[in-house]
Amino acid sequence: MSLSLYDVTLPVFTRMLANLLVFLDKAEADAAARKYSTEALADARLAPDMIPFRGQVMIATDHVKGCVSRLAGQPVPSWPDEEKTFDELRARVQKALDLLVTITPEAMQGSETREVTLKTRTGEVTLSGLDYVNQRAMPNFYFHVTTAYDILRHNGVPLGKSDFIG
Amino acid sequence: MSLSLYDVTLPVFTRMLANLLVFLDKAEADAAARKYSTEALADARLAPDMIPFRGQVMIATDHVKGCVSRLAGQPVPSWPDEEKTFDELRARVQKALDLLVTITPEAMQGSETREVTLKTRTGEVTLSGLDYVNQRAMPNFYFHVTTAYDILRHNGVPLGKSDFIG
Repeated sequence: MSLSLYDVTLPVFTRMLANLLVFLDKAEADAAARKYSTEALADARLAPDMIPFRGQVMIATDHVKGCVSRLAGQPVPSWPDEEKTFDELRARVQKALDLLVTITPEAMQGSETREVTLKTRTGEVTLSGLDYVNQRAMPNFYFHVTTAYDILRHNGVPLGKSDFIG
Repeated sequence: MSLSLYDVTLPVFTRMLANLLVFLDKAEADAAARKYSTEALADARLAPDMIPFRGQVMIATDHVKGCVSRLAGQPVPSWPDEEKTFDELRARVQKALDLLVTITPEAMQGSETREVTLKTRTGEVTLSGLDYVNQRAMPNFYFHVTTAYDILRHNGVPLGKSDFIG
């Protein structure tokens, strides 16, 4: 078979976002069982200068839309960061899942050598599609999904590694 | 170019393990500055039923050796889990980095369709090399590197996202 960046990004995003929906469901069930508000979880952080749970979910989806759009040579859609409740966060994850089904393998063909230009705090950086996936998109995506999981676990939500792996 | 699983695993492991060495260095410097023992950090956890920092480092390297060995069709080396100190953890990461330089792109050629059989708690699972990378090796690797970072950040070690991304 001929491998493309589609094969190592699309199925990963789809699977991990589905797992993220499970984290949200299990956290909501725990909040109901232990009688606390999911708002407290949405705002929970691992350190005062880290981003709260809801930010982790939003940024994870940002990396999904950024990655598949850039690799497919399409404009990156702009999504306002207004989600606060668990229902809104669930809708945000679903929006990313809905975008994924519109991306075809053909659109990403050859994207490993396509130039991707990113705006950073210090200016613009141009990377090949492959380096962008390896050095930016995937580490950032996994960072935020894992940290979302870690915040919930730190707060006693009964999740296990199998929920993360799916 | 023709993409292979080598291209989306080897450089990622090499880069993220180098970042993990930076986490260890910065944590050690913080321990010296704030006058606490790195042993406390090595044993720190985000939840009582999660694995401590030193376990996160060990398991991250386990997924590296498992992944590259399986994709290259080589036996997975067995490394006893005896690391306790920061120097021992650093040596463990270096052992994984040393293994990576022995793996050639040729050895992994075609590994996306090679069958990989894993022992799990409930029996054996056989996956294609591609599914193994997408569904097991990379999510597990990133999970443990991110959780190592999260444990340090939760304990006040001055790391930033740029240390994680490298």
